[in-house]
Amino acid sequence: MTAAPRTSWVDSANDPTSDFPLQNLPYGVFRRDGTTRIGVAIGDQILELHACAHRGLLAGLPGEIAAACSAVRMNPLMSLGPASWSALRRELTSLLDADQPNAQAYETLLIPMRDVEMQLPAAIGDYTDFYASIHHATRVGKLLRPDNPLLPNYKYVPIGYHGRASSIVVSGAEITRPSGQTKPTAADPIFGPTRALDYELEVGLFIGPGNSLGHPIPIASAEEHIFGLCLLNDWSARDLQSWESQPLGPFLAKSFATTISPWIVPLEALAPYRVAAPMRPEGDPAPLPYLTATSQAIDLTLEVYLQSRSMRDAGAPAMRLSTSNLRDLYWTPAQLITHHTSNGCNLRPGDLLATGTISGPAEGSEGCLLEKKLNPEPIRLPSGEQRVFLEDGDQVALRAFARRPGLPQIGFGECTGFVVG
Amino acid sequence: MTAAPRTSWVDSANDPTSDFPLQNLPYGVFRRDGTTRIGVAIGDQILELHACAHRGLLAGLPGEIAAACSAVRMNPLMSLGPASWSALRRELTSLLDADQPNAQAYETLLIPMRDVEMQLPAAIGDYTDFYASIHHATRVGKLLRPDNPLLPNYKYVPIGYHGRASSIVVSGAEITRPSGQTKPTAADPIFGPTRALDYELEVGLFIGPGNSLGHPIPIASAEEHIFGLCLLNDWSARDLQSWESQPLGPFLAKSFATTISPWIVPLEALAPYRVAAPMRPEGDPAPLPYLTATSQAIDLTLEVYLQSRSMRDAGAPAMRLSTSNLRDLYWTPAQLITHHTSNGCNLRPGDLLATGTISGPAEGSEGCLLEKKLNPEPIRLPSGEQRVFLEDGDQVALRAFARRPGLPQIGFGECTGFVVG
Repeated sequence: MTAAPRTSWVDSANDPTSDFPLQNLPYGVFRRDGTTRIGVAIGDQILELHACAHRGLLAGLPGEIAAACSAVRMNPLMSLGPASWSALRRELTSLLDADQPNAQAYETLLIPMRDVEMQLPAAIGDYTDFYASIHHATRVGKLLRPDNPLLPNYKYVPIGYHGRASSIVVSGAEITRPSGQTKPTAADPIFGPTRALDYELEVGLFIGPGNSLGHPIPIASAEEHIFGLCLLNDWSARDLQSWESQPLGPFLAKSFATTISPWIVPLEALAPYRVAAPMRPEGDPAPLPYLTATSQAIDLTLEVYLQSRSMRDAGAPAMRLSTSNLRDLYWTPAQLITHHTSNGCNLRPGDLLATGTISGPAEGSEGCLLEKKLNPEPIRLPSGEQRVFLEDGDQVALRAFARRPGLPQIGFGECTGFVVG
Repeated sequence: MTAAPRTSWVDSANDPTSDFPLQNLPYGVFRRDGTTRIGVAIGDQILELHACAHRGLLAGLPGEIAAACSAVRMNPLMSLGPASWSALRRELTSLLDADQPNAQAYETLLIPMRDVEMQLPAAIGDYTDFYASIHHATRVGKLLRPDNPLLPNYKYVPIGYHGRASSIVVSGAEITRPSGQTKPTAADPIFGPTRALDYELEVGLFIGPGNSLGHPIPIASAEEHIFGLCLLNDWSARDLQSWESQPLGPFLAKSFATTISPWIVPLEALAPYRVAAPMRPEGDPAPLPYLTATSQAIDLTLEVYLQSRSMRDAGAPAMRLSTSNLRDLYWTPAQLITHHTSNGCNLRPGDLLATGTISGPAEGSEGCLLEKKLNPEPIRLPSGEQRVFLEDGDQVALRAFARRPGLPQIGFGECTGFVVG
């Protein structure tokens, strides 16, 4: 007989539809009344960590943890590493547990989520975007090379590129349709608003302690450098991308905006949802020794929703465009970290790594609109509209949840962007 | 009759071989006795700006300038913009001028360069590397596509990619030969130290005020966002690069290290060396309207020197491998800035833009070893050694100077790296 999962004295956390039960406790940075603080999501409330430290509730922990909890960005907390993160998590779990005897005294530490403005969780020194879904890479490749979609390096190299850190925004920020150069077939290039605005469904990994320059992180310890996970929308202008990307890769097609969800789910909260990394298909090469993983994948369901302006005006709910799963990546998070540092490149606390578009093998699991172009039918919205790419007024929301029988769901909150012309 | 150029009471600044006469006054960040400060190079000395402010010597300037001069990185100073930079430069020029009546009292503000350790000048939020030399792009293209070296987008798009900010180091730092995946012809990929380590001769532009997300910088005001220039060596592992770069561009082939020179030469110091941007050859398309430049190029001579271990052991001087000029770029600095922000991407104070390898049209002006592979003869060093790519123990030094009759030379100091295995 399995014990019932622990509950919290914060009632809303025990609602089975909540993203933020006691078992989640994601970290975020919020602003209220002109003050910026780190908090932990619990139900529809935020536990304010500076106030916890101020009241001496973290006094049982090493002083550097309480200090990191009082910062205005999470970089110091991220730098402390897994032992400190676990210690803090144990303390916060006990504080919020339904059995907590002082619960009533702690109610003043809570702030309703609706009263705050979420901020970027960290000063992001560098942002790297990978290309770890073989299903995404294969579908995109098919559009260019129907007979030979996957490039020869794909099964050996966790392909990635440097992204733009300055234009990372938090869920809710408006996304202005970017302008840029495009090249119509058989005509001269022109400059103007993109006509092929797309989303990309991704997961972001916030880096913990990291490594110093010249010292690669071995695969066995790579996960010690994952502070937590978020959702990430790598907005893309496909017409800019196809014209600018040779020979040095995507640049302005991506750098106008990247949206992340504000709540960073600790890797530890996802421990019950770890699964074996998918077996490589018969005939695929084994990873090179430096990438030979003992690490596991994460069973995390991902969804993309779209709501057009006319759907919103009609009170129609957003339409789910696709669903996929983080576990289906060709490369694990540990392999991404080890590959990234294999040349000696240093990762710093607060750096952000993203997986690249997460797609599955089946129809309906495409993580971006570009992949859906393989289907001759355009997307039909309940409003009667069609979509090939995003239109002004469209709202795109990414969602994620981990589920297992007998456990409350771990959600990621929303990662939403609204396209304006 | 032209007036003789001003001189300084700091004698070494008047030596015609000095990089740092009164007309230069580049800014740098240095460390001495555990303290980090901003300084200005003058001859073989450094004028310490915090001490100047502390002594009230900047009291005639707005308070924000003195405050920025007392910071430990130059980001605040960079954010102030051209009017503030000019005001500070006038003040410092007067302070160091040979006619300065209080010169004797100011001697204690000087620190010998040999006594300090130079640091990165700014917290670099994002680093972008361009590909602005058509001569470089053409030679590299010839190695891959002898009959059609230049890609169709080159003359329309200032091609660039996001680089890695964390691994930017200052001149003098050792460069550890990186390991990575390479693909020998007709064999499986292997992991090991690169066998094709290269330098790239580039110029870096440090960004001033920058722009907010969604607000492009028009070409007419682009130069207001250039704080100053430095030398930059974009170390590259060519064998990693050719295996990893499709479809998303270079990644680990570059991210192991980028070296910059520590002294940032103000754009204003280069005003006497501005020249018309080179005419586009007959038949080349005009730039699209958003890139139509009223801006000018900069006449700056660039050199690469190599000294192998055995040359050093024998006391032989470094050998000059190539010489080229910043004025020969296909795109001006203003065009790079405007293109970068044309999609709304925000540049922040302290961001770094690099030109890409600067090569000229003639033999001997190749800005990297890769280009020299077009010549069937390997490079012969005075020691009798040959070079195709860099060997352990090699020291690579970049140099730059602006010269005009009747003016002292403006130099950039050294941008040096030493390759270790």
